[in-house]
Amino acid sequence: EMESWSFLDTAESNFKPLVVIELAKGTKEETIEWFTKRIVDKKANGGAQLLMKPLVTENGVENIYLVGASHLRLLLGAEAVGLVKECSDNSMRTFTYSSRKTFKHYADDNHDFLTMAECQYIIKHELENLRAKDEKMIPGYPQAKLYPGKSIVRRLLTSGILVQIFPLHDREELKKLSHSWYGRVKIGYQPLDDIRCYFGETIALYFGFLEYFTFALIPMAVIGIPYYVFAWEDYDKYVMFATFNLLWSTVILEVWKRMCAILTYRWGTLLMKRQFEEPRPGFHGVLGINPVTGREEPMYSSIKRQLRIYLVSLPFVCLCLYFSLYVMMIYFDLEQWALDYHKENESNFSSLMLYVPSIIYAVVIEIMNLIYRYAAEFLTSWENHRLESSYQNHLILKVLVFNFLNCFASLFYIAFVMFDMKLLRQSLATLLITSQILNQFAESLLPYWLQKRYNRRMRKRMCSTKTDMDLSLAEQVNMEKEMGTYLGTFDDYLELFLQFGYVSLFSCVYPLAAVFAVLNNITEIYSDALKMCRVYKRPFAEPTANIGVWQLAFETMSVISVVTNCILIGMSPEVDALFPDSKMDLVLTVALVEHLLLAIKFIMAFVIPDKPRDIQMKLAKLEFESLEALKQQVRAFQMQLHFLLIHH
Amino acid sequence: EMESWSFLDTAESNFKPLVVIELAKGTKEETIEWFTKRIVDKKANGGAQLLMKPLVTENGVENIYLVGASHLRLLLGAEAVGLVKECSDNSMRTFTYSSRKTFKHYADDNHDFLTMAECQYIIKHELENLRAKDEKMIPGYPQAKLYPGKSIVRRLLTSGILVQIFPLHDREELKKLSHSWYGRVKIGYQPLDDIRCYFGETIALYFGFLEYFTFALIPMAVIGIPYYVFAWEDYDKYVMFATFNLLWSTVILEVWKRMCAILTYRWGTLLMKRQFEEPRPGFHGVLGINPVTGREEPMYSSIKRQLRIYLVSLPFVCLCLYFSLYVMMIYFDLEQWALDYHKENESNFSSLMLYVPSIIYAVVIEIMNLIYRYAAEFLTSWENHRLESSYQNHLILKVLVFNFLNCFASLFYIAFVMFDMKLLRQSLATLLITSQILNQFAESLLPYWLQKRYNRRMRKRMCSTKTDMDLSLAEQVNMEKEMGTYLGTFDDYLELFLQFGYVSLFSCVYPLAAVFAVLNNITEIYSDALKMCRVYKRPFAEPTANIGVWQLAFETMSVISVVTNCILIGMSPEVDALFPDSKMDLVLTVALVEHLLLAIKFIMAFVIPDKPRDIQMKLAKLEFESLEALKQQVRAFQMQLHFLLIHH
Repeated sequence: EMESWSFLDTAESNFKPLVVIELAKGTKEETIEWFTKRIVDKKANGGAQLLMKPLVTENGVENIYLVGASHLRLLLGAEAVGLVKECSDNSMRTFTYSSRKTFKHYADDNHDFLTMAECQYIIKHELENLRAKDEKMIPGYPQAKLYPGKSIVRRLLTSGILVQIFPLHDREELKKLSHSWYGRVKIGYQPLDDIRCYFGETIALYFGFLEYFTFALIPMAVIGIPYYVFAWEDYDKYVMFATFNLLWSTVILEVWKRMCAILTYRWGTLLMKRQFEEPRPGFHGVLGINPVTGREEPMYSSIKRQLRIYLVSLPFVCLCLYFSLYVMMIYFDLEQWALDYHKENESNFSSLMLYVPSIIYAVVIEIMNLIYRYAAEFLTSWENHRLESSYQNHLILKVLVFNFLNCFASLFYIAFVMFDMKLLRQSLATLLITSQILNQFAESLLPYWLQKRYNRRMRKRMCSTKTDMDLSLAEQVNMEKEMGTYLGTFDDYLELFLQFGYVSLFSCVYPLAAVFAVLNNITEIYSDALKMCRVYKRPFAEPTANIGVWQLAFETMSVISVVTNCILIGMSPEVDALFPDSKMDLVLTVALVEHLLLAIKFIMAFVIPDKPRDIQMKLAKLEFESLEALKQQVRAFQMQLHFLLIHH
Repeated sequence: EMESWSFLDTAESNFKPLVVIELAKGTKEETIEWFTKRIVDKKANGGAQLLMKPLVTENGVENIYLVGASHLRLLLGAEAVGLVKECSDNSMRTFTYSSRKTFKHYADDNHDFLTMAECQYIIKHELENLRAKDEKMIPGYPQAKLYPGKSIVRRLLTSGILVQIFPLHDREELKKLSHSWYGRVKIGYQPLDDIRCYFGETIALYFGFLEYFTFALIPMAVIGIPYYVFAWEDYDKYVMFATFNLLWSTVILEVWKRMCAILTYRWGTLLMKRQFEEPRPGFHGVLGINPVTGREEPMYSSIKRQLRIYLVSLPFVCLCLYFSLYVMMIYFDLEQWALDYHKENESNFSSLMLYVPSIIYAVVIEIMNLIYRYAAEFLTSWENHRLESSYQNHLILKVLVFNFLNCFASLFYIAFVMFDMKLLRQSLATLLITSQILNQFAESLLPYWLQKRYNRRMRKRMCSTKTDMDLSLAEQVNMEKEMGTYLGTFDDYLELFLQFGYVSLFSCVYPLAAVFAVLNNITEIYSDALKMCRVYKRPFAEPTANIGVWQLAFETMSVISVVTNCILIGMSPEVDALFPDSKMDLVLTVALVEHLLLAIKFIMAFVIPDKPRDIQMKLAKLEFESLEALKQQVRAFQMQLHFLLIHH
């Protein structure tokens, strides 16, 4: 067994398993040997210089391997990925091994200097950057071609030899975290720093945003309640509420940027340099020379991709949008039928029946969103984008456009074609509440129950009465490898985005929407936390400095909501009554107010700085220092050249 | 005289005068001695290590000094300012002395490797970065305080000891440039690369923008002419013209970004790293420790500045805006009076009189703009901004808002309050043409005549019949030091900005505006070129990568013009006639079209990439290389640590 160990480390006590590699059953011996050798080989030989150990269970070796690394190796890896950590003087700096002594909590024997999530991220990075040297194919699998510089792990994944790589949970830490996170019912902030330490920045930032957004909705909810309770329908009160909402939504989105900067500065990701982006795993093409890197790698003509986008994807999306509108018209037929039925019968049952079409439609919307999601993923993947970021942008754009239309088209139709405010309010309420219930159920509770049942059965099979804490490593690995994989924050943000739409687009018609959103988000925090801790495999940490394209999506929604709210207010009979002589004046006034509000929005977005002053100062200080360091270098160099100058 | 020479260079033949320093008459001897010593002193001693020589004229020494530098010193300076030059393999790279052999046209004896403008920029940079060491004051001037790190040249300038620093013209080069630029009447592009070599990137980019903008206006002018000639007033034709204009103006602004990237990539400024910004010369305050740099320097409380901005500047600007509106109302009174006069008399003279109020108003607008400009400069300087960029932004904002209102308020009033399209057309034409004539006259022709007269008198006094080319160095310096100082591209861009307003805001009412703009810009190129070459002192080159805040200003103007044009079209009787039954439908249609156009604008701005694909690739390649270099460093370091790992 010794041969599978990195030859650099001799004492087994050094080995702390961090990441699990699962190979396909029946993988050839020579492949395993080669892969293992590459992982444990020295950096100088093009290896990853990690530690690796097969997992031994009662059933013998099962093609499952545990990967770890020596402390020193992890520190060097931290430098390679450009990790930013806090120094003893409280400033944030890029970690380098040579300057390690200046960092807070650093000690040669402090193995907690890097969090477990950071260690796992480093190992993932090192594994993904394990590149083919002169291998033409994966040994034992001639059809799995390799070329110099190709990531071995990515090729193993795409050819199905590597089933999965996932980081191990730390049962003890997880218990502590889940206790402080959702273990007790309490009013207070989430332990964001602990979440970040355990799950990484992307997930912590999502929960930060969810929490921030919930707090930000509270004023809207509080102001909205009396409108519902007292059934205020006065013109001026509604206008005030809508105006407040519109300006408030701008303010909260701007302030979030500042909050986000504060969080990510503290976590170090605000300062992290962008790494050069490698092609995404699924990218394929004919081998060619990349003009940027000068390396041999698959190339795919950009024109072909454009053709696929504009001749296939775009028409498909349009078709889906048309289909969604078609379904909407069916819904209106159903609605009409329910109304007629109610008029004929006038019973309690029939008045309940009034809600049925909306509920059915809400369920259908969710199902269509789900199906479309798969289609969009397939299409975007077929478009064969070279970079993950480009893939993500195209996917998000496709999904956002469809979801927006699918969820809100019926509301727009009711509001601006049918002019039926009562139906609008009812539909809005039904759609919002149904989708919230469905989401909570499908996203967290159902998987949780399934997972719990599965765990119980597993444990019964193992004939043990042990709790989670007492599980052996092998049992833990076997249990975790069967858990679902968390697919990223996309769906969670999308849900919030649609919720923001329900709350802001028609806020002046249904002030109670914010109340439901707040209630939903509070339970959402708990159910999402549960999902992260108990349902899914631990995800790899992913450093991030902001919520990316979602910021833009939310801002666009808030611009659209200015337009819709202004029109809705303009259409209300109370406002109508203010302009008894001329409809013209009414419309012009509405248009004027709308343009003013939009102008105020843009000026506010321009005036409010994206980063708080103290963060700006800290960044300026860092920039100044690096420029000074450069100058020092130039100066030192000039000194060296001094004698040259004299003899010139 | 030898003592005033840098001791490093022994042969006088090395000395090529590049920059002129003029000290005040009667400057104390000890001050001159100290200043000279600091300039020629070695870098290691905190000097600038430049060459310096007093100018000797017939009248003896006149406190005018010539500054130059050895070739090697200039190369090291080029590295210090971060100059980007073309390599032998056609890629652009930051120049370093150690990699000098890889650059195109580099040879140890090729003294033209750096252009004269670059050499002058380097010398300016070195002079400005000559900092006080332990001096507490300027020797001989106890009231001119110094502190460690304070720029000596800036203190000398603010205390009036240093009258001016300016770069010398190169008569031969200038003659060549002016011949190819404006010397012959020809259809063709300006020699932008030559302009850049002689005047630097900021000025070349202005002329590039002016040229691009003129070409971009030609389609609008060409399409506009038949509207004037055939007096087309059909609804559909006008709508087409306006729609074309609106989309076209978006396209040209987006495409300009790409053009700009192409130009500045070629010039190397696109890749130049931003230097750390020092406080601007006029900034004053109590000495304190700057939290960013940790240096002792004047500090000024940001709250005090905010108070000055919001309690003094803002009210003042509002007052000026009010005053401008007041003047506008007087103009309308005059207009009314002229109309009445014309009705009473009905003569040729009286119909000519109809144009007089507009012309007077146009002149008054220009005068008010000028006066306000001085006030804005005074106020912004009084606000005591620490950075030049912040000063510039506040100044530009103040000036833009006032100029916009001052120039366009009357047109808005005529269009949207008086609804008098005929008067609008007439006013627009008068304002546009008068302001163009005034500008050309005040900006270029008048100074040119004055300068020419002065030169002639100067030469007569020197009793010589020599041409410019034969002037001795002393005569050249004496002539140039009396020339006016070019104050930057601000006014030139402002003029273009206002012109863009005249062309786009009411384009559907007066299609001929684009024609006048094109004609004006063609002469503007010539008169501006004349101004740069003959009227003003040579300005220091200033590297820049884009036109900065002006891009935003032009884009804002094009958004506003969508709104105004939609309203104008909506108000035209032809469109009115299309909706005979309901004004409501008309207004709603106009609002819908406006929102659609705005949406298309934003989508276009989003979809069109800011940089052409090949520039993107080149930038990606550079980024990849620098990341690879960093990785190599880390790898080399890891190799060194290898033995450490073994013994771990």
